[in-house]
Amino acid sequence: MTLAGRSLTTVDDFTTGEMEAVFSLADQLAVALHQQDDPCRGKIMASLFFEPSTRTRLSFETAMHRLGGDVISAVDIGATSLAKGESIADMARVIGSYADIVVIRHPWEGAARVVADYAGIPVINAGDGGHQHPTQTLLDLYTIRMERKTIKGLKIALWGDLKYGRTIHSLIFALAKFGANILFCPSPGLEVPEHIIEKLITEYGGELERYDSAKDKNKDRHFPLNAIYITPDSPHQLAMMPDVNIEVELKAGVDALYVTRPQKERFTAAEREDSARQKYAVVDKALLKDNAFKKTLVMHPLPRVDELAYELDTDPRSMYFKQAALGVPVRMALIALLLGVREVSIPEDTFVPKVSYPVYNRDSGIRCPNTRCVSVQETEIKYLRSGFKIVDHNPLTLRCIYCEHGFEPEYVASTDWHEGKLASRRYHRADSHWTTKIKPENLLIFASADQAEAHGFRPDHAVVQTQTKSGKAEA
Amino acid sequence: MTLAGRSLTTVDDFTTGEMEAVFSLADQLAVALHQQDDPCRGKIMASLFFEPSTRTRLSFETAMHRLGGDVISAVDIGATSLAKGESIADMARVIGSYADIVVIRHPWEGAARVVADYAGIPVINAGDGGHQHPTQTLLDLYTIRMERKTIKGLKIALWGDLKYGRTIHSLIFALAKFGANILFCPSPGLEVPEHIIEKLITEYGGELERYDSAKDKNKDRHFPLNAIYITPDSPHQLAMMPDVNIEVELKAGVDALYVTRPQKERFTAAEREDSARQKYAVVDKALLKDNAFKKTLVMHPLPRVDELAYELDTDPRSMYFKQAALGVPVRMALIALLLGVREVSIPEDTFVPKVSYPVYNRDSGIRCPNTRCVSVQETEIKYLRSGFKIVDHNPLTLRCIYCEHGFEPEYVASTDWHEGKLASRRYHRADSHWTTKIKPENLLIFASADQAEAHGFRPDHAVVQTQTKSGKAEA
Amino acid sequence: MTLAGRSLTTVDDFTTGEMEAVFSLADQLAVALHQQDDPCRGKIMASLFFEPSTRTRLSFETAMHRLGGDVISAVDIGATSLAKGESIADMARVIGSYADIVVIRHPWEGAARVVADYAGIPVINAGDGGHQHPTQTLLDLYTIRMERKTIKGLKIALWGDLKYGRTIHSLIFALAKFGANILFCPSPGLEVPEHIIEKLITEYGGELERYDSAKDKNKDRHFPLNAIYITPDSPHQLAMMPDVNIEVELKAGVDALYVTRPQKERFTAAEREDSARQKYAVVDKALLKDNAFKKTLVMHPLPRVDELAYELDTDPRSMYFKQAALGVPVRMALIALLLGVREVSIPEDTFVPKVSYPVYNRDSGIRCPNTRCVSVQETEIKYLRSGFKIVDHNPLTLRCIYCEHGFEPEYVASTDWHEGKLASRRYHRADSHWTTKIKPENLLIFASADQAEAHGFRPDHAVVQTQTKSGKAEA
Repeated sequence: MTLAGRSLTTVDDFTTGEMEAVFSLADQLAVALHQQDDPCRGKIMASLFFEPSTRTRLSFETAMHRLGGDVISAVDIGATSLAKGESIADMARVIGSYADIVVIRHPWEGAARVVADYAGIPVINAGDGGHQHPTQTLLDLYTIRMERKTIKGLKIALWGDLKYGRTIHSLIFALAKFGANILFCPSPGLEVPEHIIEKLITEYGGELERYDSAKDKNKDRHFPLNAIYITPDSPHQLAMMPDVNIEVELKAGVDALYVTRPQKERFTAAEREDSARQKYAVVDKALLKDNAFKKTLVMHPLPRVDELAYELDTDPRSMYFKQAALGVPVRMALIALLLGVREVSIPEDTFVPKVSYPVYNRDSGIRCPNTRCVSVQETEIKYLRSGFKIVDHNPLTLRCIYCEHGFEPEYVASTDWHEGKLASRRYHRADSHWTTKIKPENLLIFASADQAEAHGFRPDHAVVQTQTKSGKAEA
Repeated sequence: MTLAGRSLTTVDDFTTGEMEAVFSLADQLAVALHQQDDPCRGKIMASLFFEPSTRTRLSFETAMHRLGGDVISAVDIGATSLAKGESIADMARVIGSYADIVVIRHPWEGAARVVADYAGIPVINAGDGGHQHPTQTLLDLYTIRMERKTIKGLKIALWGDLKYGRTIHSLIFALAKFGANILFCPSPGLEVPEHIIEKLITEYGGELERYDSAKDKNKDRHFPLNAIYITPDSPHQLAMMPDVNIEVELKAGVDALYVTRPQKERFTAAEREDSARQKYAVVDKALLKDNAFKKTLVMHPLPRVDELAYELDTDPRSMYFKQAALGVPVRMALIALLLGVREVSIPEDTFVPKVSYPVYNRDSGIRCPNTRCVSVQETEIKYLRSGFKIVDHNPLTLRCIYCEHGFEPEYVASTDWHEGKLASRRYHRADSHWTTKIKPENLLIFASADQAEAHGFRPDHAVVQTQTKSGKAEA
Repeated sequence: MTLAGRSLTTVDDFTTGEMEAVFSLADQLAVALHQQDDPCRGKIMASLFFEPSTRTRLSFETAMHRLGGDVISAVDIGATSLAKGESIADMARVIGSYADIVVIRHPWEGAARVVADYAGIPVINAGDGGHQHPTQTLLDLYTIRMERKTIKGLKIALWGDLKYGRTIHSLIFALAKFGANILFCPSPGLEVPEHIIEKLITEYGGELERYDSAKDKNKDRHFPLNAIYITPDSPHQLAMMPDVNIEVELKAGVDALYVTRPQKERFTAAEREDSARQKYAVVDKALLKDNAFKKTLVMHPLPRVDELAYELDTDPRSMYFKQAALGVPVRMALIALLLGVREVSIPEDTFVPKVSYPVYNRDSGIRCPNTRCVSVQETEIKYLRSGFKIVDHNPLTLRCIYCEHGFEPEYVASTDWHEGKLASRRYHRADSHWTTKIKPENLLIFASADQAEAHGFRPDHAVVQTQTKSGKAEA
């Protein structure tokens, strides 16, 4: 097994063993960052940033230069061919014929995957909308591992905007894979999306313990603990742990407090209004006086705005500038491994996913409802084929293979409609028993009645009834 | 003869032999793109892009890095001194003292020539407004040559926006030079400008055969053939070929179909309105089923929008991604030759221009009427001297030496006005017999009566009559 | 003494000897710009330009490449984390963990100093608002020195916008340090700010001779001489020179005429209106016919607009393109010395500053009144501590340690208020005798009565009287 030629678009692309391999090469490189023997000499990295960034872009470009490689970069969507209506696939194919590796940041969720599908060279996702930011997660884990020697079994608290932070979403799944326990401390209104919780439970075998503030003896704590989630001690055991005691957990101490800023640029209008009224809690010296934080690593992906006080900058628990600095060796290691100019042995994967989902990709007209998904953009819809993992049957739930958003479609039908008798060519409500009755290989899924009818299906009795009702309601 | 120290601002700057030299070095370099011995080590390329581009800029920068050289780049006019009102000449002189070679893209037509005139180092035009894009042409020709072994005698169809596409304009003249036959297949309203047709006929000894749709037995063909132009089999023979039979030509098969997108960013307001209503023909599998296209190379300078169907991407005739990829070795070869770090023998020129025009550059106040010409911009007019080739006398026709736009000026006069008798100091209509009567060395040309009178001339009898008439008309 | 690890944020950061060291290494490097042995191989320069620039940025990047180093760059504030509200300190700390040296241009005055305070690596100021541009000054001095062998005792005329030109402000102090004589020839309304004149007199021991146009026998000269300033022949002598005769000075010839463009982007609305009506004098051949300019070096930091005629470009006195070219070896030398990859012996400082000011940095709420000062920006005020040099006591005058703007605060008080008797806890007008009566270690300075009262002070009798008066005036 090797990482050469591979891409990293989400944290799921790498096993825990492959991430360990990156960390172990980073350990070697970090010893003498400035004295490399130019393993990437003659190699070119394309650095394509279609969203604002200084830190991440310059970190990648620094990493490539420290490896002796060259960089070509495009940083502003206004100054690129994309403004002329070019598709990501075309751009990827062309850049793939110039460079040896691509780093891409893009506002559309799933964009990095499309680049990886078409470029023909290794692709690294440097952030795709609110979806993922896997190299941030690598450097976060690397920092924790450097300070605590392991990740497994640690107690990591996530603070702030757990709704829109792509760094948070990548981090959650990686922590779960490595067997860490996660505490959620969201700002009000910025809770972890339900689909992520679902995924943690079903795929990672985790367990959620919701915090009941009424039972809290210590209500005036500074630490706004809203929910707590614990991954099982061993991710291989699916044992439920119903008796987790939050107080006990906290007293044992938090290993890391991962702070994030409100991602206001992704807020809805209503959220923006809310946030103007709201005063978010600030992580400062007073808050860190709590016993639970005595030895806590204070982490932040940066940039910070007001959520993390400057007075902490000289505190030995503060790790955020160290995180930024460690991004360079971690990215150097990643680039060197994907380009195949360095090899390290890859430890075995310690995580076994709990489930494997079938993929639905029939051309029945159904599209991802996420307006930021790459697959529904005007320039991409021409050639990109939708695809969805069927992650649940009751209710029928799809997850887009590009942006990983989950949703519940309206209707189903069967391609096998009783040997051509038109009378039986019916479509059904997705929440009816038909969804499981239709054989998987025959399943057709529709987002709307119009879509089903455009495919030559007519409503079944239950659908007609609902339509009539809603028609009445409308009238 | 060497290419070291030379510039490439239009395809006319290189002989066919010199282009062949570029191709032959590209052949050598393409063998092992990644394993160069850094011939450009220690050299710096300035990459100045004052118009949106990803592909072209990154292609040049890749080329320079593959040669072991360094790149400095400026990509956004808003972020440069030009925003402070600096002239192109000043910018060129300063950059010329930093770098070893300049690549420039600029919205003003003729801008690359001005840079070449002042930089003191080799300059490559990467696109100047709607004027030329000679390196795109080099890679287009290189692709054709690689697939067909030769360019001479091939039948090349040009499709789409033949009016605004600078890649088309550069390509037409280069194909003519190499002795290829050109078929024009413009989108409605986007025909090749007349001045280009004129130039092809007078300077390249070509011949135009207009297509008469009434005579077409095959009217419902998918292939929107509006006009056909054939260069003589041997460009050295000026023989007319009145009996070209379009049907026969087509049956023999088209060697390449060069598709372009509508350059909407250059459209006039009226054209933009038209284009919104218009549905442009799309090159797709159906169209390519025509027998004429059996072995046709499908080419496109990219980015494409809707004019070229994605279903063709896997078709073996499709060359557009290959074109993009071949841009790297072609540009590597060009850079290496202009910098003089590589030498190849230069074959003899196979093309002899039919005519050589006198240049008019007296300071009589006449200016290029093209508002996108570099010579009429506020920052450039201070120091740039206008110059025009006199390409015709009947009617008197000038061609700007910067943007190559042709136009017919209004009036003429003579510097030699009968030994000082004021009475005879008259100006004449340019379409009168005076234009040829005045000795070339004495000819003065004016754009308006005011200009002529500001130089101390008075209208002759014919001019007075016209002015009176138009005066009446106005009154 | 070494320059390794040092920063250059204002010309005051270097002694004359240290500047001479830069020049002497530049001399060595200029001999074979293209044939360096890559002393900066493996080093990375971060090039951060938060304001428009081509020339300066590309000059620095060229310099780094010629030294064999690599460059990472960010050129547009819109495309950076700063747009997310990040502070300069955070950005500096992160970049400091990526690169080996930082070059920064920023619109906020004093920003380069903040970067230098936090980056932990050498920082070069490439222009901070209207404050300073020290490397432009280095190359200006280097050009003069190359042409005239020395700077001491030369007569340098500064022409144009002496109010907003940061290059002018840096140059004035450096020329004074080197013992040159300076003539001011400002465009009307764009005179040298008084605080600069003050600084020249008090700190550099200079002397000002104002020009009296009534006495001028030669009133119709083209040379718009408004004021003349002469530094003493030897800066070590503080001798006054009351008998300077301007006519005599001019007849002896001007060594250099340093022309600048009106910095319209920094004009106030009123100045912009004025400038639209105004026709600024142009430096052209006619003006340079004056005997005083027979051997004058014509200099300009570029870009020029209309203040310097193109007809001078071929004049042997014109130095402006040479200046730009010499920027490369000067910046190479500076980078190499700050990075410590080259060492040269540093001559003794020839300039001894006349005064040393105490710094006021109590947290009494007083802030720099310059709205472009880095210390008063929303993102910086959270962590930056204000600081002011007390440069005068009568009237009390403070100079911001960041942007160096001077101003006169309103009120003072003493921390030592008679052992707790509240009755004596008063604040006083800054222009009263109290300012000198209060012991320096007890001095509190306030910008407003509100600020003083917020600190628990009450107005003294004199303050009450003034407040009553102004209250009446307002009523």
